Amino acid sequence: MAFATIRDVAQKAGVSITAVSQILHGKGRFSDETKALVRKTVDELGYVPDSRAQGIRLSESRTVGLLVPDIRNPFFADLVSSMEEQLYEKGYSTLIGTSAEDVQRQDAFITTLLGQRIDGAIVVPEGADSPGIRSLIDRDLPLVFVDRTVEGLDTVPSVVSDPYPGIESAVDTLRQLGHRRVGFVAHSSLGSVNVNERETAFRAIAGELLGEDGAVVVDCDNSSRSRKDALMALLAEDATAMLCAYSPDAIALIGLLHDRGMDVGEDLSVVSFDDIDAFRLMSPQVAIISQQTADMGRQGVEMLLARIGAKRKRRAENRRIPTVFVQRGSVGVAPQAR
Amino acid sequence: MAFATIRDVAQKAGVSITAVSQILHGKGRFSDETKALVRKTVDELGYVPDSRAQGIRLSESRTVGLLVPDIRNPFFADLVSSMEEQLYEKGYSTLIGTSAEDVQRQDAFITTLLGQRIDGAIVVPEGADSPGIRSLIDRDLPLVFVDRTVEGLDTVPSVVSDPYPGIESAVDTLRQLGHRRVGFVAHSSLGSVNVNERETAFRAIAGELLGEDGAVVVDCDNSSRSRKDALMALLAEDATAMLCAYSPDAIALIGLLHDRGMDVGEDLSVVSFDDIDAFRLMSPQVAIISQQTADMGRQGVEMLLARIGAKRKRRAENRRIPTVFVQRGSVGVAPQAR
Repeated sequence: MAFATIRDVAQKAGVSITAVSQILHGKGRFSDETKALVRKTVDELGYVPDSRAQGIRLSESRTVGLLVPDIRNPFFADLVSSMEEQLYEKGYSTLIGTSAEDVQRQDAFITTLLGQRIDGAIVVPEGADSPGIRSLIDRDLPLVFVDRTVEGLDTVPSVVSDPYPGIESAVDTLRQLGHRRVGFVAHSSLGSVNVNERETAFRAIAGELLGEDGAVVVDCDNSSRSRKDALMALLAEDATAMLCAYSPDAIALIGLLHDRGMDVGEDLSVVSFDDIDAFRLMSPQVAIISQQTADMGRQGVEMLLARIGAKRKRRAENRRIPTVFVQRGSVGVAPQAR
Repeated sequence: MAFATIRDVAQKAGVSITAVSQILHGKGRFSDETKALVRKTVDELGYVPDSRAQGIRLSESRTVGLLVPDIRNPFFADLVSSMEEQLYEKGYSTLIGTSAEDVQRQDAFITTLLGQRIDGAIVVPEGADSPGIRSLIDRDLPLVFVDRTVEGLDTVPSVVSDPYPGIESAVDTLRQLGHRRVGFVAHSSLGSVNVNERETAFRAIAGELLGEDGAVVVDCDNSSRSRKDALMALLAEDATAMLCAYSPDAIALIGLLHDRGMDVGEDLSVVSFDDIDAFRLMSPQVAIISQQTADMGRQGVEMLLARIGAKRKRRAENRRIPTVFVQRGSVGVAPQAR
């Protein structure tokens, strides 16, 4: 569907264009019924109450909208910066917005974006299908999902991370270093499809590489209490290494290991998801499973620009970027193998 | 100055409106002289080549532009999130852009912003006065600077951080715990006015509270070599505490202390600028001097919204938010006082 115009709204509601304009600007005298009818029609048609919005698809603004959940999360900050960098190199400006992991806020930003001059949008979608996401698709604006997809919307091209290769490489390295029982610290309370998929992947891979008893899976939330319990459970189960699915847990658990006088990489090997600065600055440096944010961002931008430039619609492509294990000082030979 | 229109450009250049439009869209046949004249006039008048841009000051878009150097820096990520939150509560959407600490990129984003529908802008300015910053001021768009100001542009209202109260409270706490020689880790290669002001403040305060020999100032850059040298110099000078002006240095130096088997808070007390998550997750937790980002963001938004709502121009106000020292486990009694 192309952009709805004020004329479309007037026609469908059976009132004059002036009446629509006045009602939307809170002017003129109209019955409550007429006002309600016009507002309902505006919603139904997805009309953005500014005629300039129609220009979005007519003129090349060389501007792209970028929507992510939370830039305080270093993973998203890296992803955004990588995409911004790429877009800038290609001559595009970027308008960034965040959803604060909240569907209503996501949809509010999408409405704003649709009133601006943009050529396309890259979105880390929040939750399931939403009116905002729908309106992006209905406007026929070039759109790409990164990091997450929306169930049932596979007509939108996407780039997401594949946790399997990184986890397989990490577990295999640990196995070669003599580790026989490897812990996995889940964080199910996040409700993140991506974080949960890591647990599924770990169970499958550890089961295969280490055998039935090789995987020790524990779960924690953001409280220190639950993190301490998770660590105690891992140690009680004789795990000599642990893999954290959520990076803040790794930082906190390393702190707890220091408290107990245990040496990271000697008494317990540690691997965490996500390539964040703090892991490179800590001592020993923390081994990671990288989601290759720069690569994910680059491919997301590439796919979007191909759509913006396309004369006719392309078939949606759904890519998965393999994760990569980066070995560092926090991973060492298992104590029983020394 | 109000927005320049295509009519203004045509009049000043002595050509038709159609000629201006065609030249800007690379159409029509014109002499190189005419093309150059039109482009020069466009630059001089600061005309944004889209008539819709004129609507920016005419219609309330309830959208604010936000420009920061780098969202990968947790300080700016926090600042942006706090402002976005505030603006969302007041019914405003936010379009975020970054300058990557680069004046040209800053100015490119400002140009994009001026072509969009926004009611005002909050900017962490990059470097000295620039054409982009000038164009924001010339358009008479409500504008506020946060975290940094621009020399000579005190007509723009601003909110910046005052390092003195936090440093004074930190040094006084260390003095009471028996510390007589306190190190300060500068990072002059950043070229940041704010980071450099912290050194000036520390020298003045330590001189007063600890006497002439109380302050041990060292400098480092992002290399591990220089950080190691800085730490060695502090220890050689018998400093029993250190204050880091730049938070990545604190994380790296704590790593080096662990390497040497030294206990943070026992062998060396540590205080760092900036309230970042990693400091709360480390063990012991790292004491900080907080720049009160939430408060800075709140006041910046307040000042901007007052300007957007104002019937007539207000006098520019330049506020300083006092920093606050937050005592945590990384600060302990001096070894010689135990």
